[in-house]
Amino acid sequence: MEIDEQFKEYKGKRCLVTGGLGFIGSNLAIKLFQLGADVTILDNMDPMCGGNMFNIDPIKNKVTVVVGDLCDEKTVKPLLKNTEYIFNLAGSTSHVGGENNPLNDLRMNTQSHLTLLNLCKGSDVKIIYTGSRSQYGRTRKTPVSEDTPCKPTDINGINKLSAEMLHLLFYKNYGLQTCCLRLTNTFGPRMPMKNSSFGFVNWFVRQTIDCKPITLFGDGGQLRDFSYVDDVVDVLLICMVNKNVWGEVFNVGLGIPLNVRNMAEMIVSIAKKGKVKFESWPEHRKNIEIGDYYADITKLKRFIGWDSASFLDSSIKETLDFFKKYKKYYWSDD
Amino acid sequence: MEIDEQFKEYKGKRCLVTGGLGFIGSNLAIKLFQLGADVTILDNMDPMCGGNMFNIDPIKNKVTVVVGDLCDEKTVKPLLKNTEYIFNLAGSTSHVGGENNPLNDLRMNTQSHLTLLNLCKGSDVKIIYTGSRSQYGRTRKTPVSEDTPCKPTDINGINKLSAEMLHLLFYKNYGLQTCCLRLTNTFGPRMPMKNSSFGFVNWFVRQTIDCKPITLFGDGGQLRDFSYVDDVVDVLLICMVNKNVWGEVFNVGLGIPLNVRNMAEMIVSIAKKGKVKFESWPEHRKNIEIGDYYADITKLKRFIGWDSASFLDSSIKETLDFFKKYKKYYWSDD
Repeated sequence: MEIDEQFKEYKGKRCLVTGGLGFIGSNLAIKLFQLGADVTILDNMDPMCGGNMFNIDPIKNKVTVVVGDLCDEKTVKPLLKNTEYIFNLAGSTSHVGGENNPLNDLRMNTQSHLTLLNLCKGSDVKIIYTGSRSQYGRTRKTPVSEDTPCKPTDINGINKLSAEMLHLLFYKNYGLQTCCLRLTNTFGPRMPMKNSSFGFVNWFVRQTIDCKPITLFGDGGQLRDFSYVDDVVDVLLICMVNKNVWGEVFNVGLGIPLNVRNMAEMIVSIAKKGKVKFESWPEHRKNIEIGDYYADITKLKRFIGWDSASFLDSSIKETLDFFKKYKKYYWSDD
Repeated sequence: MEIDEQFKEYKGKRCLVTGGLGFIGSNLAIKLFQLGADVTILDNMDPMCGGNMFNIDPIKNKVTVVVGDLCDEKTVKPLLKNTEYIFNLAGSTSHVGGENNPLNDLRMNTQSHLTLLNLCKGSDVKIIYTGSRSQYGRTRKTPVSEDTPCKPTDINGINKLSAEMLHLLFYKNYGLQTCCLRLTNTFGPRMPMKNSSFGFVNWFVRQTIDCKPITLFGDGGQLRDFSYVDDVVDVLLICMVNKNVWGEVFNVGLGIPLNVRNMAEMIVSIAKKGKVKFESWPEHRKNIEIGDYYADITKLKRFIGWDSASFLDSSIKETLDFFKKYKKYYWSDD
């Protein structure tokens, strides 16, 4: 297969995945293991994040797992020895979590990364950091390209933007090979499903599997760009072995706008159960709502030639199938 | 006097000055005391910052001084009781300090402010935060106005920008009254003088008083906007009692470009001793050098009608006189 040919470099490579027990991190770690990499996972298992031991069930005992804090130099330093690739996915993405505990958000989304970067200074390790479209804040013009000024509207977005700036600064000032991705709404197997603060697609899937209605604010007409986790993992793998991405920022997404209502209706329709209902916007959500978003992914395509996104309907089906089967490992806050 | 009429509101007002043992903070605290305010100072006396007990010698025993950490909720919370105005000046401004100890820089320049903001959420206290022109990064067009995208080129600038974004977010999302100033090269009595990492004007003054040469990198031709500390204190005092500044960002400066060589030569000429010499740029400084800067202060003038900057030559003379007289309290790292 052509794609695996492209990934043969991973065989025997020592890779560290921070946040590797989380949603995207665990999917990536499984793929890395399949490609023959020597995988170490660091994850803090913070309740604000998506860490879940079951996420790495297919590779348990085959990778090194360290439950620890990326802010703790003593934990991190030994993991860096001989590490060639760092997929730096640690962090929380919860807007609500950032509001409720801003200092923990700062710690997990900025301090952690600065600790890692500082320890890597002077080495030739390669680091890919995953930020978020929340860094842009309220969008004025879609699709949103990377040179749009970043004006985050929530604490989580500020802390993630800060981490991105630090990654780029360590490239520019100290020659550390870093690349930053701005992910959009990513969904798929191994998403955290404990409560509604982990992203709305997650919650739509859970509600639907439980035969409960999906509640949309307003008419659910705001545009989003939905990424399937397998595609995000592919982008991460392709970027890491590409010579031209260092010091660069890339939007990652389908680049195709879909509104929130469309997504809800597709989930209900593919699941053949549940329903969609509508409510007016809660006051406290209005200020952090960012309006329409979909990514301009021209730059990503130009740099890495990526053009093989999954079909949305089959991605939704795989997601529903996974969570129907493994519900008991994911619904734990019931 | 007209200016004191404008400041009569300060009589009896409970004011907290974070970083109040530092350069600008102590000058402000002295003025606040003179205006009849009830002044509390919080300062961490970190060696990366400008804290110096001698700075408040004129008001010692007349204000409350807490040596403690703005990151420590237990220290900060009692100080907020009945506080009406917070001049939030804590932080370090050292580029070199940020490079050498980035995590301490993050703690002092971002975590500290987030801790304070979080404790003030829901109250009607007014907060003025002092950021820095380093938030802009390398400038492309002068004068620099507030809507110029911020692309800091050093860790200190990133952490300060992050603190500014947090102040504005707490205004927008939680209704907290915050206003952010972006200061430029400020000089005057009570500057930290221990070593060369505290700003170049400071160092020029010290070298000159010690009859040592001032070393300029390149031809010293890069433009800067020099503020006298008395003017910065005036702007702080005027903003705090102005109804229209909340949620706003203002450049503070003279708005008049002067190059670094001019400043060095003026200091030598007014001091009637010392000299200026030239060296080529050290490699590690090139990346964080931001090019020319002077502030567009149109917005500040429009909002607060401020138009009474001190004369540069008398400001330099007052600065030299102060440090000649009190050298022993400031040269302590000799």
